[in-house]
Amino acid sequence: MNQHTPIPRTIVEAAIQKTGLANVGGASIREIRRLIDLIEADSGVSFLRMEMGIPGLAPPAIGVEAERAALAAGVAQHYPPVAGVPELKHEVSRFVQNVIGVSVSEEGCLPTVGTLQGSMAAFLVAGHMHPGRRAVLFLDPGFPVHALQARMLGLEVRRLDIADSRGPKLAEALEAQLADGSVCALLYSNPNNPTWMCLNDEELAVIAAAADRHDLLVLEDFAYIAMDTRTPYRLDGNAPFQPSVLHHSDRALLLISSSKAFSYAGQRVGMLVVPDAQYARRYPELAGWFGHERFGAALTLGALYGFSAGVSHSAQYGLAAILKAVNEGEYRFLDTADEYSGRAAEAKRIFVRHGFSLVYDTDVDQPLGDGFYFTIAYPGFTGEALVAELFYYGISAIALSSTGARREGLRACVSFLPTEVMPELDRRLAAFRADHPVPKSN
Amino acid sequence: MNQHTPIPRTIVEAAIQKTGLANVGGASIREIRRLIDLIEADSGVSFLRMEMGIPGLAPPAIGVEAERAALAAGVAQHYPPVAGVPELKHEVSRFVQNVIGVSVSEEGCLPTVGTLQGSMAAFLVAGHMHPGRRAVLFLDPGFPVHALQARMLGLEVRRLDIADSRGPKLAEALEAQLADGSVCALLYSNPNNPTWMCLNDEELAVIAAAADRHDLLVLEDFAYIAMDTRTPYRLDGNAPFQPSVLHHSDRALLLISSSKAFSYAGQRVGMLVVPDAQYARRYPELAGWFGHERFGAALTLGALYGFSAGVSHSAQYGLAAILKAVNEGEYRFLDTADEYSGRAAEAKRIFVRHGFSLVYDTDVDQPLGDGFYFTIAYPGFTGEALVAELFYYGISAIALSSTGARREGLRACVSFLPTEVMPELDRRLAAFRADHPVPKSN
Repeated sequence: MNQHTPIPRTIVEAAIQKTGLANVGGASIREIRRLIDLIEADSGVSFLRMEMGIPGLAPPAIGVEAERAALAAGVAQHYPPVAGVPELKHEVSRFVQNVIGVSVSEEGCLPTVGTLQGSMAAFLVAGHMHPGRRAVLFLDPGFPVHALQARMLGLEVRRLDIADSRGPKLAEALEAQLADGSVCALLYSNPNNPTWMCLNDEELAVIAAAADRHDLLVLEDFAYIAMDTRTPYRLDGNAPFQPSVLHHSDRALLLISSSKAFSYAGQRVGMLVVPDAQYARRYPELAGWFGHERFGAALTLGALYGFSAGVSHSAQYGLAAILKAVNEGEYRFLDTADEYSGRAAEAKRIFVRHGFSLVYDTDVDQPLGDGFYFTIAYPGFTGEALVAELFYYGISAIALSSTGARREGLRACVSFLPTEVMPELDRRLAAFRADHPVPKSN
Repeated sequence: MNQHTPIPRTIVEAAIQKTGLANVGGASIREIRRLIDLIEADSGVSFLRMEMGIPGLAPPAIGVEAERAALAAGVAQHYPPVAGVPELKHEVSRFVQNVIGVSVSEEGCLPTVGTLQGSMAAFLVAGHMHPGRRAVLFLDPGFPVHALQARMLGLEVRRLDIADSRGPKLAEALEAQLADGSVCALLYSNPNNPTWMCLNDEELAVIAAAADRHDLLVLEDFAYIAMDTRTPYRLDGNAPFQPSVLHHSDRALLLISSSKAFSYAGQRVGMLVVPDAQYARRYPELAGWFGHERFGAALTLGALYGFSAGVSHSAQYGLAAILKAVNEGEYRFLDTADEYSGRAAEAKRIFVRHGFSLVYDTDVDQPLGDGFYFTIAYPGFTGEALVAELFYYGISAIALSSTGARREGLRACVSFLPTEVMPELDRRLAAFRADHPVPKSN
């Protein structure tokens, strides 16, 4: 085997030795990057990089120019309002109406330093809403940092792998986790990293009913809002809308990221959207921790003020300008989603043509969409073994095991896989297959 | 009394009634602002605003332009490194060497989303360094948000009012708080909000010795670094240096703010400086919470990553440019401190001329410097009563009671008190004194 590798085996092995990595397949993204740098330098072969989950397209000029104008106008001097500048709050409220079809007052439309600050603040408050309820339920597979946040705050982390509990099985699987009354909050991403699965409207209704029954706070993570390209979202206040738990319950917060949808990861400005009823809801227990019983006040004047006293002033104006352009139909951010989708469709076809299979491929009753991520496996390989073996073919990805997914395989991201490299992907995977013939039994 | 008020009593009373404030003297800064807006609109009299603690000068163009250039170069697309961009880390390290005379490797020079994110992250990690040690000691008077942060994280808040335990009394007062072994961290600000007191080198040595003896983490808050104008700091790597606990112990972190020193509050970019020995120090207990035993790794890959996955990319370049200009002697940021100092000296003289006294006026054996804040009292008035009464004279400030200080009086901030309004301050205080003659016994 390995006779067709585009990179000499000795170079890869020397690089692995140099980094001291005992288990390449289980390496972190940072360790993988260092390994690739070494191999590329020694071999002259460029990797097809699919391990990262970062935007691969330029940010919209309208946001960049609005930030630059705000800086020129002197915003760097003044503390931003903790709950956000009015211009941004206004556009976030419109955006939620346009994309999700739900009305949320500007008061509850909050900027955060990335959506990670939003989830951290939400966990901190949720963990003190009810005495003794200190567990957070994560619907896996998911972005592992969310669970790390809860753990850092001393919350109990519960996990429910929903890949095998989709559709009609979801209610029972959820109830089994919630029955003891310890859970205060529940988080999932839609679409989901690493699988690109999307919970559908029936499933969101099940989650909403559980939230209402158990007085849970649902955190709906939109790291890739409206980027499920199977549905032609209008984004103008008319259906079809981005499915959301807010269509069924107000016991929920939305975490809306600008990193991928707007390629605006660098400025660390996300959105935390609190529906009016949840903003006003009172929890006597919160007063002792945050000085306020009202959820919205505990969140903004307590947690968010304590975390950073606000979000970069100029970045708020940048995001406001982007959202305004979206709201007024002048910036079609879903062109970004379409670009990634086209790449994913083609890359999946190439992988499948060469004997790979999709690990997660179905949303209850329909095929997954093509998006930022997809998941693949190869007969006879664990995920970690496959990561390691693909290194010799100049292809990098991460093992699903590192994401909390139970199934074996890889997560591949298309953000750094432009269309023009697809022929090279095809050649390298052909070489891989030639070196690793699929056994007949498969 | 009140016959000389520049604002008719009825207008002030109507405004108070309109805001529904039961206790004007105890109002928050936000409530005071609303009251002033109403009174100014009705009376046409502009207030002399001394209640806020926000920068009153323009930010340096070099920072603003560097941010704008970074945005034009496309940094908004890319996630910033969690531990900071190399350019910033380099300049922070030089700045610490130049201003404090201490060498800290670039690895430990971290950007944070305001120094509040730095203290929050430090509290989170410190609270898990040693099993069972969950108390933080605050040297009061101080900035109340720090204690709120610790409380939100479930840490025990201990307070030591050091105004009456300065100099040779400090060691014993500290030991009384630390003797039971529950304290994991200790925080103070130098200079201090609200009093502008500065701990001197002997006192810092006492704190350092306590830190070494009890394995404490000291958080030294430089919200106003080098802004004690009594000492002519060189800022070029030569003495005199900003006094710091780092001259006596490496069990300390520095929180260095850009908000006041560089008038850069809006972009939420501060510095958290971890000396090499503390960065490398291992605490087995941390692994279970942050995945790393090493303090620096738990702080950066755990807490700071979880809080926001980094700091605004452009703001990092902006701050790097400001620091570079300071480090190379091209930007004298202490001109800002000198401006505030001149205002404070003159305002203090005017207050004292009209019968006011300074509440906190001495650092052990020398008079306090003139700086961003000073504290005043008037015979026969509590702090809250004085805040309320000065409203009729168009002067706003906050009561010391709201800052955790034990003595009665006001905190006055000079950032919005330019030199040209001093004659008006003089007239209004003369009117105040005429209406409130100081009793002979005083």
